[in-house]
Amino acid sequence: MRTVEVDLGAASYPIYIGSGLLKNDFCQQHIVGNSCMLISNTTVAPHYAEVLSQQIKIDKTGECLLEDSEQYKNLESLEKIITSLLEQHFDRNTTLIALGGGVVGDICGFAAASFQRGVNFIQVPTTLLAMVDSSVGGKTAVNHALGKNMIGAFHQPQCVVIDIDTLQTLEEREYRAGLAEVIKYGLIIDAEFFDWLQQNIQLLMQRDSEALIYAIERSCAIKADVVSQDEKEQGIRALLNLGHTFGHAIETGLGYGEWLHGEAISTGMILAARLSEMLGLLSKTDVKRTTDIFKQTGLPTHIPNAMTADRFTELMAVDKKVKDGVLRLILMESIGKAVIKDDVSPAQIKAVIETHPA
Amino acid sequence: MRTVEVDLGAASYPIYIGSGLLKNDFCQQHIVGNSCMLISNTTVAPHYAEVLSQQIKIDKTGECLLEDSEQYKNLESLEKIITSLLEQHFDRNTTLIALGGGVVGDICGFAAASFQRGVNFIQVPTTLLAMVDSSVGGKTAVNHALGKNMIGAFHQPQCVVIDIDTLQTLEEREYRAGLAEVIKYGLIIDAEFFDWLQQNIQLLMQRDSEALIYAIERSCAIKADVVSQDEKEQGIRALLNLGHTFGHAIETGLGYGEWLHGEAISTGMILAARLSEMLGLLSKTDVKRTTDIFKQTGLPTHIPNAMTADRFTELMAVDKKVKDGVLRLILMESIGKAVIKDDVSPAQIKAVIETHPA
Repeated sequence: MRTVEVDLGAASYPIYIGSGLLKNDFCQQHIVGNSCMLISNTTVAPHYAEVLSQQIKIDKTGECLLEDSEQYKNLESLEKIITSLLEQHFDRNTTLIALGGGVVGDICGFAAASFQRGVNFIQVPTTLLAMVDSSVGGKTAVNHALGKNMIGAFHQPQCVVIDIDTLQTLEEREYRAGLAEVIKYGLIIDAEFFDWLQQNIQLLMQRDSEALIYAIERSCAIKADVVSQDEKEQGIRALLNLGHTFGHAIETGLGYGEWLHGEAISTGMILAARLSEMLGLLSKTDVKRTTDIFKQTGLPTHIPNAMTADRFTELMAVDKKVKDGVLRLILMESIGKAVIKDDVSPAQIKAVIETHPA
Repeated sequence: MRTVEVDLGAASYPIYIGSGLLKNDFCQQHIVGNSCMLISNTTVAPHYAEVLSQQIKIDKTGECLLEDSEQYKNLESLEKIITSLLEQHFDRNTTLIALGGGVVGDICGFAAASFQRGVNFIQVPTTLLAMVDSSVGGKTAVNHALGKNMIGAFHQPQCVVIDIDTLQTLEEREYRAGLAEVIKYGLIIDAEFFDWLQQNIQLLMQRDSEALIYAIERSCAIKADVVSQDEKEQGIRALLNLGHTFGHAIETGLGYGEWLHGEAISTGMILAARLSEMLGLLSKTDVKRTTDIFKQTGLPTHIPNAMTADRFTELMAVDKKVKDGVLRLILMESIGKAVIKDDVSPAQIKAVIETHPA
């Protein structure tokens, strides 16, 4: 087992990464108070809820299951959790446990942030995407019909328990989507890790345990390091959004769930790389290396037919990365070095979309 | 004009108290970013929205009006504000201004806490209750059908602008309800202020400007002092809840809005005083002084007919003041000295309710 520490002063917490962790008492160790409620969904719970619950020795426990998929990441699901907590008389001294992918983690995290103005929670991510991204860093939220993650809070968990065995039941498409975020860490900040990924992408595609533990540890360590420097996303944390402004436009434009988040940011990162080249920041070779690894992973590299350049710029205008009306984009200067740019015009964005290879 | 500083480190802010303040540029001075949205309700906005808006010199402004009354303090109103912000392309660099009573302030504050995981806001309270209580201290929330303020956040405003002229349009019943919270500050922590209130209660009932400014300043200063010591209500801040556990039970039991918050805590504080006497903590004389001042103010001192002792204990069991299943009550040792008690039994609570004079 590996442990990555997320260093956030009083809100610091460990991420445990390994095989067989659900059968251990990591959750139990980090429960604060005398009650806990497991929040999961109807797909994940049948596989893992029982083994996890057996490790929890506490007076009062409960369970609240949500429907599976991004379309349920809304205020109604938040209300469902709060209703469940209140009906069963859970009080402020409760720990919520999020067992599932990013949707469960984000909703549960926001429920923990807002129930009685804040209770403790633990993340037990069961998708690769949630393991390397949403469960680290304390961003919680639900979607609004007009934009992703528009209602939320910064709220750090007590710990994150990553049991890679849970990836065995993950659908192939979901798994590959998770790899998109892993590759992102190499692209934005760690050229050496990107080289390792290029060499080991086949092992990762086969879900090799050792390769997976290394890739997850490296990803979590990079994200933890960035988040420690900038918890509230005033600066460097924005780099984690490489490909996300394009990606969110695709997700919103097609309707949540049509393309998975990892798929949308795969095309998004390639668009960011091509835009970087167009602006003279990035070499043609690095654009090709970027495109190739996503192709090898079987991730989309094209723009969906339904998305015109106008639709992109319209949707990107409501993204959270807009500041004082100026769109903030994350671009690349090389593989392993992302930069924040505030001066990209809608015309330049349109140009990169209109010239994108089909 | 008086200024009370709320000392919370980086989140510190001033409370301005005086006459004619809406006609000055206090809001303008504290707006962060290049846009702001005024959140108000259909009762208050016709009186004060225009004069306030005229003082705001900024590129982009908007307005979102809620229905008036506690029954709209829910997730739907939160969603209405977020929809309004997104439809009009407001971004993260926005300041929300809450113009209204506690309901507007609490919803707007929670919208500011959760929109894009947190934007700035300013409180412009127009009821006495909001001036001395909800606009100070950063507690924001909406209600759930099963309990008041169950979904919320701690989120501090940039400043609070209290213009006592807005009290001229406040209904008599609402005004008196606000006085209940003013009296509370004397009861919990400041015997001298309680003496002043006993002597000046008639002037306050007449809404005398000088008496009002003093009472509001003293109330805000006491609350600011308590909040500075304990922002997240781990300890001393709980004293501010004198009468509130009983009061919330009345509000929830009768249905939100049947009794005003100040009315419910008026009876609540008398119940707390009588329970304190029953437990040998408080003298009969102090119980009488407590009861008398609420009677003089025309506030209720009786228990509503619909509320049985069983209903009280049932509703009090889901209150936020429950910790590890033990009900935490605020009681009194003397006028000016409230204490936290964790060892009150349901039987003792029932006894004080069943023996309460009609």
